[in-house]
Amino acid sequence: MSDTTEKPAGGMNRRDFLKAGLAAGGAAAFGGAAAAAENDPLITEVQDWNRYLGAGVQAAPYGVPSEHEPHVVRCDVEWLTASTESSVNFTPLHELDGIITPNGLCFERHHGGVADIAPADHRLMINGLVDTPLVFTMQNLMRFPRENRVYFLECAANSGMEWRGSQFNGCQYTHGMVHCVMYTGVPLKLLLEEAGVKANGKWLLAEGADAAAMTHSIPMEKALDDCLVAFKMNGEALRPEQGYPLRLWVPDWEGNMWGKWLRQLEVGDEPWQQREETSKYTDLLASGKARRFTWVMDPKSIITNPSPQMPITHGKGPLVISGLVWSGNGQIKRVYVSIDGGRNWKTARIDGPSFFKALHRFYLDIEWDGSPLLLQSRALDEHGFYQPTKNELRAERGENSIYHNNSVQTWHVKEDGTVENVEVS
Amino acid sequence: MSDTTEKPAGGMNRRDFLKAGLAAGGAAAFGGAAAAAENDPLITEVQDWNRYLGAGVQAAPYGVPSEHEPHVVRCDVEWLTASTESSVNFTPLHELDGIITPNGLCFERHHGGVADIAPADHRLMINGLVDTPLVFTMQNLMRFPRENRVYFLECAANSGMEWRGSQFNGCQYTHGMVHCVMYTGVPLKLLLEEAGVKANGKWLLAEGADAAAMTHSIPMEKALDDCLVAFKMNGEALRPEQGYPLRLWVPDWEGNMWGKWLRQLEVGDEPWQQREETSKYTDLLASGKARRFTWVMDPKSIITNPSPQMPITHGKGPLVISGLVWSGNGQIKRVYVSIDGGRNWKTARIDGPSFFKALHRFYLDIEWDGSPLLLQSRALDEHGFYQPTKNELRAERGENSIYHNNSVQTWHVKEDGTVENVEVS
Repeated sequence: MSDTTEKPAGGMNRRDFLKAGLAAGGAAAFGGAAAAAENDPLITEVQDWNRYLGAGVQAAPYGVPSEHEPHVVRCDVEWLTASTESSVNFTPLHELDGIITPNGLCFERHHGGVADIAPADHRLMINGLVDTPLVFTMQNLMRFPRENRVYFLECAANSGMEWRGSQFNGCQYTHGMVHCVMYTGVPLKLLLEEAGVKANGKWLLAEGADAAAMTHSIPMEKALDDCLVAFKMNGEALRPEQGYPLRLWVPDWEGNMWGKWLRQLEVGDEPWQQREETSKYTDLLASGKARRFTWVMDPKSIITNPSPQMPITHGKGPLVISGLVWSGNGQIKRVYVSIDGGRNWKTARIDGPSFFKALHRFYLDIEWDGSPLLLQSRALDEHGFYQPTKNELRAERGENSIYHNNSVQTWHVKEDGTVENVEVS
Repeated sequence: MSDTTEKPAGGMNRRDFLKAGLAAGGAAAFGGAAAAAENDPLITEVQDWNRYLGAGVQAAPYGVPSEHEPHVVRCDVEWLTASTESSVNFTPLHELDGIITPNGLCFERHHGGVADIAPADHRLMINGLVDTPLVFTMQNLMRFPRENRVYFLECAANSGMEWRGSQFNGCQYTHGMVHCVMYTGVPLKLLLEEAGVKANGKWLLAEGADAAAMTHSIPMEKALDDCLVAFKMNGEALRPEQGYPLRLWVPDWEGNMWGKWLRQLEVGDEPWQQREETSKYTDLLASGKARRFTWVMDPKSIITNPSPQMPITHGKGPLVISGLVWSGNGQIKRVYVSIDGGRNWKTARIDGPSFFKALHRFYLDIEWDGSPLLLQSRALDEHGFYQPTKNELRAERGENSIYHNNSVQTWHVKEDGTVENVEVS
């Protein structure tokens, strides 16, 4: 966003800054002498939007963002993968605030493109080691008791490109495979109880109805705990790219477990060892061995503003540092911010709803003196888990992996306000 | 949504119903003998969406709803008002669940159409009885500490057409001028403190930058309490029809106070007696006198499903009754549901986040025996305020008013599952 107000002088606090920098405009409008503001037609003249009727209510029965916000989109990633059907795009975290991700901006990750399914044609089957195999229509699912919960969803590969060094200038690219939504759905436990899981039914294979027929093994203990079969997100029907009309919802666990276009739940006595849980979505260590079934998303945070895509354009003085923090391990206890590359830390202010297993929004309000910053944030959860540095993570897991990078990210804020993705040792 | 599953027999509980009605499909898919399911190609054959690659991630950088959801829109209201620039549309409450209203479906109410303002060209001025008149750019507002809150917004005229009898077949029309959003903004208190309110500054005149230059008087006590100057809704920039780029946010109070396209806050020593707080937005009583400054929205609730636009199409058996409840007076203590026109009441289950001053989602899960119902819901808040019946409200306020109807709504569910808006005496 551009700004016609002059930059404030250095060394002033917020009150001084506003009185000096902003009162000019106010004074001009009310007979003062500040030349710059007096000549600002935005204050002294009636503008078109105040003079002429605007568009009426008919324009868009389903509303869309302002035409002044064309840059707030999930980014074009044609350069990233061989095809768009098995690809990804990223949530524009730097443009957002609060904790809810609008449905139109939730990142996508597909393995066979977006399945186009009419709800009346969709079926969910539960079979395998159950007393009674069942098939549900969407309408029948909606006759079960529903729940509403706000949870984050993070792709296991989020920040994966950062393992081998700072790669991308923007939190949209480094951390944009996460979103936070209020879901409505039916507890999976209720559906499994209807079918009657046999005593040796210890695992569940969840399968999607898309062209990839994505499958994942889920331990029965998790399935009976807090999983949901969801049909609404942020109040309305799931979006096609998020599994419309039905999605499995596996809180705290990596996003690829959240089966989109969910059509089958097979109960078995051991995991299935499918492609997406063996050759993919396992963490190859330096030794050549791989960690697998590493489902839980560890504590993590990111400063979204300022960041490479959201430089400081207003000069010295009051600066709102803002970011997101989350953990699949437990409640967020605290989030710290450093402006000097991790030498000193301040506790940031978490503001707004603080749901267990959801994104949290944090702020640190500072006075920027115009000197370079090395901005970092660091999450701490209730069990004492904290984010490691990149080098601590590499020391433990090597550099082969692309999954489960929850390390501390560093932004280098330069004197001119531009921001770069860097590493500090 | 259509359904190819046969209707269950009457008198069965959910478990019996599902085993009888749904297991057929499961049995067919796994060698059983149920003819109907065996012949269902949706189970026995691989579908196109499973056979062919779907659309890739590039299709919509800002996502839109499924093409199978064209009916989920704010309704066309050309029939309602003389022009679309001073008109209204309605949130499709019957299609939503949870408590968050998606930005694209929040109802609109304009008095001069939607102002089209580039953020760089927007200014907020604070003047009048202040030590220092101030003008803020959008960028400068974003340098103040921010807050995030989930609040409902209801038009004072919501349900206004119901004063003189049941008028419209659908909760979208009777109750659709309400939405619930997570806002991000700056406490108004901070901005007023910057300007320095003089001792005799007891009222605030908030003015919009639209063609109507909408103005309202707000007592300073409220302005310094919980009002916010908001620039984000549900994470992203305000939508144009919700005041982009800046909106005043006056929790609990009628929606017309929530100044859209906010450009000026003038501090004075008494209310201004503007058109929209004298000839409009006052409550004309039977005596010919008018209640004015009736800002607070009283406890209210509505059953959204089943409802005239969302009939029962699945026959007897398990039925999810769902609705919304809210109050500007205090915390919701309880919400009751009656299926017999108010003779007997059951406490409904409130599920999901329960924020002070936000919408709450309630459910009552029943077994429907197929006989007619007179569905009602009734809110009770922490101070003992409850929703009156329509006749109780008329006895107190007459029938001249269109504002502040918080009475109990009745839906008549017929044997065939269709639903009608009725009154019970």
